[in-house]
Amino acid sequence: MSSCYYKDFPALRALEGELGYSLPPLAYLDNAATTHKPSTVLEAVEGYYRDCNANPYRGVYRTSVASTRLYEGSRAIVADFIGAKADEIVFTRNTTEAINLVAHCFALERLRPGDEIALPISEHHSNLVVWQHVCEKTGAKLVFLHPDKNGRLRDNEMEEKIGPATKIVAIAHVSNVLGTIFPIERIVSRAHDMGAVVMLDCAQSAGHRPLDMKRLGVDFAAFSGHKMYAPMGIGVLYARTDLLESMPPYMFGGEMIDAVHERHSTFEAGPKRFEAGTPNVAGAIGLAAAIDYLTRIGFDEIESIERDLANRLIDGMRAIDSLRIYGNPYPTLDRSGVVAFGVVGAHPQDVALVLDSRNIAVRSGSHCAQPLHRRLGVEQSCRVSPCFYNTPDEIDRFLDTVEGARRTISRRIMSVFP
Amino acid sequence: MSSCYYKDFPALRALEGELGYSLPPLAYLDNAATTHKPSTVLEAVEGYYRDCNANPYRGVYRTSVASTRLYEGSRAIVADFIGAKADEIVFTRNTTEAINLVAHCFALERLRPGDEIALPISEHHSNLVVWQHVCEKTGAKLVFLHPDKNGRLRDNEMEEKIGPATKIVAIAHVSNVLGTIFPIERIVSRAHDMGAVVMLDCAQSAGHRPLDMKRLGVDFAAFSGHKMYAPMGIGVLYARTDLLESMPPYMFGGEMIDAVHERHSTFEAGPKRFEAGTPNVAGAIGLAAAIDYLTRIGFDEIESIERDLANRLIDGMRAIDSLRIYGNPYPTLDRSGVVAFGVVGAHPQDVALVLDSRNIAVRSGSHCAQPLHRRLGVEQSCRVSPCFYNTPDEIDRFLDTVEGARRTISRRIMSVFP
Repeated sequence: MSSCYYKDFPALRALEGELGYSLPPLAYLDNAATTHKPSTVLEAVEGYYRDCNANPYRGVYRTSVASTRLYEGSRAIVADFIGAKADEIVFTRNTTEAINLVAHCFALERLRPGDEIALPISEHHSNLVVWQHVCEKTGAKLVFLHPDKNGRLRDNEMEEKIGPATKIVAIAHVSNVLGTIFPIERIVSRAHDMGAVVMLDCAQSAGHRPLDMKRLGVDFAAFSGHKMYAPMGIGVLYARTDLLESMPPYMFGGEMIDAVHERHSTFEAGPKRFEAGTPNVAGAIGLAAAIDYLTRIGFDEIESIERDLANRLIDGMRAIDSLRIYGNPYPTLDRSGVVAFGVVGAHPQDVALVLDSRNIAVRSGSHCAQPLHRRLGVEQSCRVSPCFYNTPDEIDRFLDTVEGARRTISRRIMSVFP
Repeated sequence: MSSCYYKDFPALRALEGELGYSLPPLAYLDNAATTHKPSTVLEAVEGYYRDCNANPYRGVYRTSVASTRLYEGSRAIVADFIGAKADEIVFTRNTTEAINLVAHCFALERLRPGDEIALPISEHHSNLVVWQHVCEKTGAKLVFLHPDKNGRLRDNEMEEKIGPATKIVAIAHVSNVLGTIFPIERIVSRAHDMGAVVMLDCAQSAGHRPLDMKRLGVDFAAFSGHKMYAPMGIGVLYARTDLLESMPPYMFGGEMIDAVHERHSTFEAGPKRFEAGTPNVAGAIGLAAAIDYLTRIGFDEIESIERDLANRLIDGMRAIDSLRIYGNPYPTLDRSGVVAFGVVGAHPQDVALVLDSRNIAVRSGSHCAQPLHRRLGVEQSCRVSPCFYNTPDEIDRFLDTVEGARRTISRRIMSVFP
């Protein structure tokens, strides 16, 4: 049973139909790590290189002018996608770079000893380690919120940990391990009441649900193209205009410059100030094409498919005795289909290898969240993360295989030590 | 007359043959800004997305393992291309980011008041403004070398300006305005004698001549994929192993991590320490494909074609009375085919527009080198920069058009003010 969107993705088609040996079709269930790209995205990127391709801003000839329009047009499309203005959008390499930009250009400039940065212990290293660095340099302090066993933040802990000393709240929109969809509007409200800004990591929400920066009310947000059906090497920082305008650049070079003298320079206003050097025009165009693709399908449809897949997945996993779900074991509305789990008595890597032997791709490891895993009492876990191009059939194959995983692993071990 | 390599580049073919209106074929002569991409590069990138596409390092399933191999394989190909070891290669977004990395992780950590950074006044803003920032933060001082009217550095000035206080010499391999091929080995020898390190900007040499880091003897080098027939969004920092090992990271996030605790973290050794977040695997593969393409043609052939084109171009330009070449007006061996020029009595942008009206792409502006232009006594210039896929015919079309440019511009002005 194929999803009606399967055919849009050449990597899924290729691996489904054209393999010359007896492997089952690929069930790609590691979409939280990276997604496949639809043909329209690949064609937009290749089309740019085939029909245009010039350095933007820097020439008056027609392909250079066209490159500038395409690049800035992509910025406008991204802005529109998240309910922001074009001059609030900085193109980066990925989510990680976007968060680092805020740390370098905002936090390092503003924080002082005694200030606090509040964040859930479940944050991805990209939204955690850089804040350790900021604390080390400024004397500020990290304050951790601890999600309960269902992956939820407690209201009283929010009140307690986000206080007058808090200057920054760093939080994922959707946890990349627990799958929790955090109550961002409530957090923003508390943070703003206390005079703190909110840095939202949207790596796991962009492409899966509509994003509206004005409604969420966050001050900064970051996401990656490659996790939302666009190419690798392009990401986005959203920053509220007044904050962006107040931040000094930290990368220096072509096109972020206003005037250069021998001993000092002045810089462009707006997002270009943070985009030193030749930008990834093709990447931005690919991201705009991915947004166009998603918009044509519509988030009602995407959320509905992903909700159904998550329900089937989580209900199925809960029914397997040997399987332990980390985070909420019920498919509630504040939980996405990103599900980390362990199989009792089996190493997560072995489980992932058994799944791979059936051509089912899930991730094993700490998912860039070691402190959370330590809290969970394990070093690693497996993680399954379907998206709208996956099918109920793939979910069932995953469930069947994972149910038999411990037996398969034991049999293999037995064959090594007979 | 077509170059035998023209057909490898779809953008040149498309614009040559398929336009529905009466524009002459494109003569793309802005290769110093960005180059077109051969089909093999586009196919390598698209092929990766179509047949593989997974987050490297982070999974044990087969496409993730393949992604790791392809990414690290690309690193090895880049290393081999410049006579370096794989663990001396950091993938960046572009040249600018690579130089900024050295400034942040090496220079800001080491320089003290009284230290000096020596660099030619002709440097691209990317290899100048970041050093102004380092000086502002550390109390170090910029010391400028001034190329003579032929674009050459004087031996006595090198002796004078690179001394015991010099800690860093920042210099382009090939000037992006004057076209000078600087005597890097001599500069490195002087710098090392004085205990300074050399940061070489290879943006204009990579892809045009063989690069051998060991022979050049530099400590750091940077170049961009997009100026050497690879995609946008991928660049390279070469750093000598012992220096790289001694540098702290400045971007924090996934995959550059060793262990993360709540209050502190430890980091990977080697280049991965500087590659936070999901890397641009497809970009690295595209760069490796460009290197493969160039290697199959061979630098003997590439240099020979580019030398012939430069001779024809520079000799032809010198013969035009109204044209002034900035830098060496003779096609000597220490001069590349990157030629900045002015037309007496005409604004560079008007000249570029006249050329564009004949579908000849050259750049106008300050080419990210405002201090140099100020020294040259002009605000802007035009720049023509052929590469091996260009043809003698295109050079002649450029020469014919630029020769008549002043007349064309006057006629236009006359038609506005009759």
